[in-house]
Amino acid sequence: MTDRAPVLGPDNVAGAGLGELAAVPFAARHIGPDDVDAQKMLAAVGYSSVAELLDAAMPEAIREVRGLRLPPAASEPEVAAELRRLADANRPMVQMIGLGYHGTHTPPVILRNVLENPAWYTAYTPYQPEISQGRLEALLNFQTVIEDLTGLPVAGASLLDEATAAAEAMTLARRANKKSSSPVFLVDSDVLPQTVAVVRTRALPLGIDVRVADLAEGLPDGEFFGVLVQYPGASGRVVDHGSLVAQAHERGALVTVAADLLGLCLLRPPGEIGVDVVVGSAQRFGVPMGFGGPHAGFMSVRKGLERMLPGRLVGVSRDADGAPAYRLALQTREQHIRREKATSNICTAQVLLAVMASMYAVYHGPDGLRRIAARTHRLATILAAGLRSGGVEVVHGVFFDTVSARVPGRAEQVVAAARDGGVNLRLVDADTVGVACDETTTEGDLLTVWRAFGLDAQPSISEVDASAAEPLPAALVRTGGYLTHPVFSAHRSETAMLRYLRDLADKDYALDRGMIPLGSCTMKLNATTEMEPITWPEFANIHPFAPADQAEGYATLIADLCGWLAEVTGYDAVSLQPNAGSQGELAGLLAIHGFHQARGEGHRDVCLIPSSAHGTNAASAVMAGMRVVVVACDDDGNVDLADLDRAIGEHADTLAAIMVTYPSTHGVYETGIAQLCAKVHEVGGQVYVDGANLNALLGFAKPGRFGADVSHLNLHKTFCIPHGGGGPGIGPVAARAHLAPYLPGHPMLGDDARPTIAAAPYGSAGILPISWAYLRLMGPDGLTAATGAAVLAANYLATRLREHFPVLYAGNKGLVAHECILDLRALTKSSGVSVDDVAKRLIDYGFHAPTMSFPVAGTLMVEPTESEDLAELDRFVEAMIAIRGEIAKVESGQWPAEDNPLRNAPHTAEMLTGDEWTHPYSRAVGGWPGGAGARRKYWSPVRRIDGAYGDRNLVCSCPPPEAFES
Amino acid sequence: MTDRAPVLGPDNVAGAGLGELAAVPFAARHIGPDDVDAQKMLAAVGYSSVAELLDAAMPEAIREVRGLRLPPAASEPEVAAELRRLADANRPMVQMIGLGYHGTHTPPVILRNVLENPAWYTAYTPYQPEISQGRLEALLNFQTVIEDLTGLPVAGASLLDEATAAAEAMTLARRANKKSSSPVFLVDSDVLPQTVAVVRTRALPLGIDVRVADLAEGLPDGEFFGVLVQYPGASGRVVDHGSLVAQAHERGALVTVAADLLGLCLLRPPGEIGVDVVVGSAQRFGVPMGFGGPHAGFMSVRKGLERMLPGRLVGVSRDADGAPAYRLALQTREQHIRREKATSNICTAQVLLAVMASMYAVYHGPDGLRRIAARTHRLATILAAGLRSGGVEVVHGVFFDTVSARVPGRAEQVVAAARDGGVNLRLVDADTVGVACDETTTEGDLLTVWRAFGLDAQPSISEVDASAAEPLPAALVRTGGYLTHPVFSAHRSETAMLRYLRDLADKDYALDRGMIPLGSCTMKLNATTEMEPITWPEFANIHPFAPADQAEGYATLIADLCGWLAEVTGYDAVSLQPNAGSQGELAGLLAIHGFHQARGEGHRDVCLIPSSAHGTNAASAVMAGMRVVVVACDDDGNVDLADLDRAIGEHADTLAAIMVTYPSTHGVYETGIAQLCAKVHEVGGQVYVDGANLNALLGFAKPGRFGADVSHLNLHKTFCIPHGGGGPGIGPVAARAHLAPYLPGHPMLGDDARPTIAAAPYGSAGILPISWAYLRLMGPDGLTAATGAAVLAANYLATRLREHFPVLYAGNKGLVAHECILDLRALTKSSGVSVDDVAKRLIDYGFHAPTMSFPVAGTLMVEPTESEDLAELDRFVEAMIAIRGEIAKVESGQWPAEDNPLRNAPHTAEMLTGDEWTHPYSRAVGGWPGGAGARRKYWSPVRRIDGAYGDRNLVCSCPPPEAFES
Repeated sequence: MTDRAPVLGPDNVAGAGLGELAAVPFAARHIGPDDVDAQKMLAAVGYSSVAELLDAAMPEAIREVRGLRLPPAASEPEVAAELRRLADANRPMVQMIGLGYHGTHTPPVILRNVLENPAWYTAYTPYQPEISQGRLEALLNFQTVIEDLTGLPVAGASLLDEATAAAEAMTLARRANKKSSSPVFLVDSDVLPQTVAVVRTRALPLGIDVRVADLAEGLPDGEFFGVLVQYPGASGRVVDHGSLVAQAHERGALVTVAADLLGLCLLRPPGEIGVDVVVGSAQRFGVPMGFGGPHAGFMSVRKGLERMLPGRLVGVSRDADGAPAYRLALQTREQHIRREKATSNICTAQVLLAVMASMYAVYHGPDGLRRIAARTHRLATILAAGLRSGGVEVVHGVFFDTVSARVPGRAEQVVAAARDGGVNLRLVDADTVGVACDETTTEGDLLTVWRAFGLDAQPSISEVDASAAEPLPAALVRTGGYLTHPVFSAHRSETAMLRYLRDLADKDYALDRGMIPLGSCTMKLNATTEMEPITWPEFANIHPFAPADQAEGYATLIADLCGWLAEVTGYDAVSLQPNAGSQGELAGLLAIHGFHQARGEGHRDVCLIPSSAHGTNAASAVMAGMRVVVVACDDDGNVDLADLDRAIGEHADTLAAIMVTYPSTHGVYETGIAQLCAKVHEVGGQVYVDGANLNALLGFAKPGRFGADVSHLNLHKTFCIPHGGGGPGIGPVAARAHLAPYLPGHPMLGDDARPTIAAAPYGSAGILPISWAYLRLMGPDGLTAATGAAVLAANYLATRLREHFPVLYAGNKGLVAHECILDLRALTKSSGVSVDDVAKRLIDYGFHAPTMSFPVAGTLMVEPTESEDLAELDRFVEAMIAIRGEIAKVESGQWPAEDNPLRNAPHTAEMLTGDEWTHPYSRAVGGWPGGAGARRKYWSPVRRIDGAYGDRNLVCSCPPPEAFES
Repeated sequence: MTDRAPVLGPDNVAGAGLGELAAVPFAARHIGPDDVDAQKMLAAVGYSSVAELLDAAMPEAIREVRGLRLPPAASEPEVAAELRRLADANRPMVQMIGLGYHGTHTPPVILRNVLENPAWYTAYTPYQPEISQGRLEALLNFQTVIEDLTGLPVAGASLLDEATAAAEAMTLARRANKKSSSPVFLVDSDVLPQTVAVVRTRALPLGIDVRVADLAEGLPDGEFFGVLVQYPGASGRVVDHGSLVAQAHERGALVTVAADLLGLCLLRPPGEIGVDVVVGSAQRFGVPMGFGGPHAGFMSVRKGLERMLPGRLVGVSRDADGAPAYRLALQTREQHIRREKATSNICTAQVLLAVMASMYAVYHGPDGLRRIAARTHRLATILAAGLRSGGVEVVHGVFFDTVSARVPGRAEQVVAAARDGGVNLRLVDADTVGVACDETTTEGDLLTVWRAFGLDAQPSISEVDASAAEPLPAALVRTGGYLTHPVFSAHRSETAMLRYLRDLADKDYALDRGMIPLGSCTMKLNATTEMEPITWPEFANIHPFAPADQAEGYATLIADLCGWLAEVTGYDAVSLQPNAGSQGELAGLLAIHGFHQARGEGHRDVCLIPSSAHGTNAASAVMAGMRVVVVACDDDGNVDLADLDRAIGEHADTLAAIMVTYPSTHGVYETGIAQLCAKVHEVGGQVYVDGANLNALLGFAKPGRFGADVSHLNLHKTFCIPHGGGGPGIGPVAARAHLAPYLPGHPMLGDDARPTIAAAPYGSAGILPISWAYLRLMGPDGLTAATGAAVLAANYLATRLREHFPVLYAGNKGLVAHECILDLRALTKSSGVSVDDVAKRLIDYGFHAPTMSFPVAGTLMVEPTESEDLAELDRFVEAMIAIRGEIAKVESGQWPAEDNPLRNAPHTAEMLTGDEWTHPYSRAVGGWPGGAGARRKYWSPVRRIDGAYGDRNLVCSCPPPEAFES
């Protein structure tokens, strides 16, 4: 698409000047089709240029005339050098601040073979479980780690961070608590400050009354439906919560413990004292701090609450041969099914980071983890003893890794002295300093800290070690084994670990194998240059609460990115805090709420949502305290403007907002969008445009300028953050100036008035370099070309497939935007072949399925993105046409409806090499539909999975090895 | 093996002190079996401890009592930090020195997915072609690049570097030249100085007379058998060699051109003027400079010379189904077959780097390469024009990328000024400066250079660009296309490239899939911590001829490594220059020759070599100008001391050396080694101990102290440099003090008297951090434990397999050293099942075959190494026992000799899923001998390859895509 520059031949090379010889731009590497292929595609669609195509497809009313005001594209080496300079402007210190973020050694074998390996990071969410067995196994390991360490029977496959997990626990407690009608949620004063802030933000719109108190003093009077305590506390203190749990239960409340995972390797697990929910962060299990994220939050629950878990849950089921197989369990809980009845809007989670944390546990095993925990604890014990011996008061006698020291009036001075020695400590208040030990702490660090406290005589580590008494009372020390499953002892050499990671990766289908044409998910290139900086220590090892002058590189990068995102969206302000699209939605709706309230219109609580909307929209609206009113769509899939008028008429006084996606979730540029915005504004409502499809607008139109007030973006869609097998994602929220004051804030930035959406001030800051690099590499022309290429590719597929499968919706001149919906309903009726059958059959052809039954049941939504080249697009077209031919054989009765290659897909190598073959088609038709010897033949490791069986027989931890004996 | 430290349980954790809680040492990650498994293995072998086992296996006479004096083991984070400090002591500059080393941008997608990907770097040499199709395809691409760009029909799959390639071309010319009996080899004075040095070193022992002259002045009088010219010359000048070639041919000489690969993208290829051989380096095709290497050298030859090519050659053949398949062609040329009749000792080549260079060409394609070449050339043109306009004399009017400028008396000053501006130039002599442009050169670099030359008025780049005339005459400009094969245009987006690399990697079996139990090759863990630094810019981007103060990190690292290697071998001096074991052998033998000559005994030229020796030994001896006399082995595989006495007696006066491997290539600690050394010394000979098996001695015995005078080591065996699919390797030579003066030197170090073995002063310096890190991580105890574990593992396999396959040789108490030989000859006789059949059948079981028919035809030599854990060792044992059972069915006639799972192995998925199945065993027996659903099932992409067919129908470039249609 982008000019790869004129081809130099022997004729013109000698005369060429430097300008003509410039290096091929990155955009030509990011965009799949070159000029020649783009012309072929345009010819098929019937246009002579991309500009002409876009002119026809996109309503003129929303088109921007001036180009993007962004820095011009830089080359890959130039961008790498700029990122290097940004990295050098950060100063990673020894981080002993604590507060939920700790130093950790990522085992290099995991760093290289997971976080730096496209086979892991370019995978999609495991909604197609047959081709996701590798990461599903890793997630099941993760769940087992959480279950074992917390002592509760069921854990989910990760949440966004500890603070949002705590907020989810609060709402879970409220739902689960049938006994209490109290709106009060008690929070211990020793809970992490960012957790308190997020819990408060989430509580407010739901009418929950958060009360913070020192619960070590006992439970206060009055009713409450739930309690949240931290274990160990933010101050480091470890309290025996046994009696608190008993009393809270007696008084009809559920108890959530926010726990430290490394601490749990040594401390009595909360499950043993009967808590209901445990939440926390798996960061310190080998995941770099990254200035705040991304990290895997976790939640485990007691028996009886498993069906209320937010987020994803991996479970064991069986495949068509009865072999054990993994898949997401209990999916009916999720917001894309339950919409406004959903209780959580979590969609993207933190799969890649959960995989890393699980592998950290696999690599160290129970004894290794206990050793790391014990060493960390011993260092803290020595630290405290040394301080005491030097006359410093240690506040708490019982602690795990964090020591609070009282130095009346001297705290700032101590913290400054430590910083001069290369160590960050926590300034608790003018009189108190917090010091957190971790896996990376050295004896030298203790000496630095002691020096910073100004101890007269520097103690000797070994002498203190010899004499310091163990501070943990026996009752708080964990007994009994954990992580006894063989997986936690089988991969302890680097060789074994490497092979385990390769084995799991080989089971999965990711972008490094072929196209993942998932409508709405935008699976495009995650370029290496974009990915490289995230594992550089200068980005990876910054504590989110480090002093600003240690994170100047991040500050510049964040300011650039906010400015560039504002420019491309036409908004005035951007917050990068939301660490998933769902959180961006919530933040945007809370901003709308804040705006109304500030104007004395806090009663406005109706949110209009078209029937075609992503389920998350409705779930987010409910979480923002709004009432959802559905607006109908017309036969063309567009918002029915008459029904919109009706809804506006009915709710004019209470209308808070409308949430629409543009282009629509049907993949169409609706022509009425400007009109829609005007209608809503007219009665005082605000317009929320879901930015999920921004990749179809970039460079051509800007929501902030065609009528929208606020949007969230998905950096993991349009801006190239890899999907990581189901997260991380980033969902910045962007708004016009009038909403800017209500965008997220953070207590650690001294900003208590605004909503706090994520645990860290800048959310998943550690992966922002990816999107920064993408924008910098593409420049305005590259970004615009990418949009054109994406729209061209979608229309090319629609054009070529239309005669085989009806394309459900189209806009102007029969054109789609960046994706198209193939309607299988008539074929299903005539042949019995379902969308599922086609999706699974595509696996045999070497493809990941398109999006199934969203936004319309019985259809496939295909989004090729700009990154797929013509050869891959054609391979997909040919597969779909061949599948249509197979359906015809079922329609004609040549193959029975219950025994045909579609119904039996995916075919495994095992099945095809069995001694018996009883099917009415050949083995080759089953296994090699793309032709024998096809390049990139991918073998599904399991046959089709029976999800319902697993839901009926819920197993969410590692099954014993015997289960796999065949 | 190494203590993973006592397991901490709930009972002892609270009381543990810091010392007991130290982190698990790296050795426990490197060594596969843990203490518990090691005890099981010891029990099977019949010993109670590793120490006891080693006491029994290793002759007491050679045992060291004191431990290794090395720094104690450091942890992975500590070693990473130390390497970081070493890296920071290097200062990468803009490198415009030229002389065969140039700046280049490694495409990040290639860096991450090849050089940083264990699937590529842990692979072995493709001697088992069925499971090496991915890298064989990449190498065929490499050959095609070289063939197309040089204009000659056949190129090999890489050589060690440009200088050694030139030396190989010299000897090839001598062999091929039937017309000339002259010993004279003419070398143009504009050939790279390091090439001249290596050519001289290689010529001397062969009696070749190297004469250096300015051939631009015409050919000198007198006879000569070959000519070597550089194109473009070291000075940058491009000469039309057309008439020189014609004249040389007329006078009966062969012509070799050492050519620059990027230059060939623009310049008339040497093939068009009829040259016989082209050599060069593929470094600037995306391979970092790395302070001199490793890089892929190349050689292409005209028709008729292909069977004389040194090194490896990939060719197209067909598999058992007639499908095209790749494998090494014409292997009978190689030294392991021809031994002392071999004409080259090259064994390890530079596969990993050749793969990178080939992928650089695939990614850029012909137009992209031409663009890079043209831009580089244009920059040089502008540079020269600017200099001229500023009054500086440019020496040559016709150049490609390098400009020689005359600044009488000012050269040092100009070079210093450029260095102050961050740019390294070449100081040619007091009056001349060389400036080389490359892919990374910026306009700013030109301005810096102009400033350094002190131009009065700084020219404007654009103005000079507008006016500067093209310096290349039309006759020297290339016409016609190249790289027209579709592979060079199909993978131009990053997505397509990523998938191509994944697809090829997926075809291959490497250490990341399972064990590679290759006797003598020592395929053990290449740990990530060891690998990480080699791609850091501070190690990667140093020019080998950069000023010493820019490479202080390297200097420290090299000094450390030399010291540590001397300590572990018991020698006094080490040279790291040889960039492969074969080169280390040559260097060692040349040192012996130098020693004898210095003592007036230059006539000593007999080299005794036991019949069991690796073929390279004999080839190296011949290259060192020695006469090989073979010494017999006795029935136990040991050197027959009686025959040794006979040989010594016969050649006492002319005895130069004996070359032995210890432990022997039979995998046995020969008890007579000390005696053998004494006997040779007694008559004035020197003892060369091949260090290939040093991993069976490390920490227990030292060749330099049990009687040897010199050894080469294989850093890619004992010291963890990955095999890279067939290179890089490093073969340092270590010697006692009396030989130290004769170890390699280098002209760029001002050292012209010593032999020069490789192009760069420190050979493949860029990968030395790997071995440095290994030694640092293991420490003396870890290294000793690794040796013990390797010997234990080999004896465990021997013990468990002995009742199924005779173990051919053993030493003391029936023990082997670090490998064992399984004798299949009787089984082959009784069943017809060959070593080949067993090797290929192991593929079906998910293993790489052991070493086949070396050192004894009809046997398999198995070396498990210390890195394989008990589970993998047992999996191998079970596979071998199962194969024995399969052989029994052939013996008994249950399966015909010509149609059984062994003969038909490897089984492909395609074969097993065919509609017909006519074999006397089931599909499942064919494809799933390890059991259905086996973890890590590896499918060979092709069936057994018919090597002879390919040799009869030699095709050594990419076959057309139609060849693959099935």
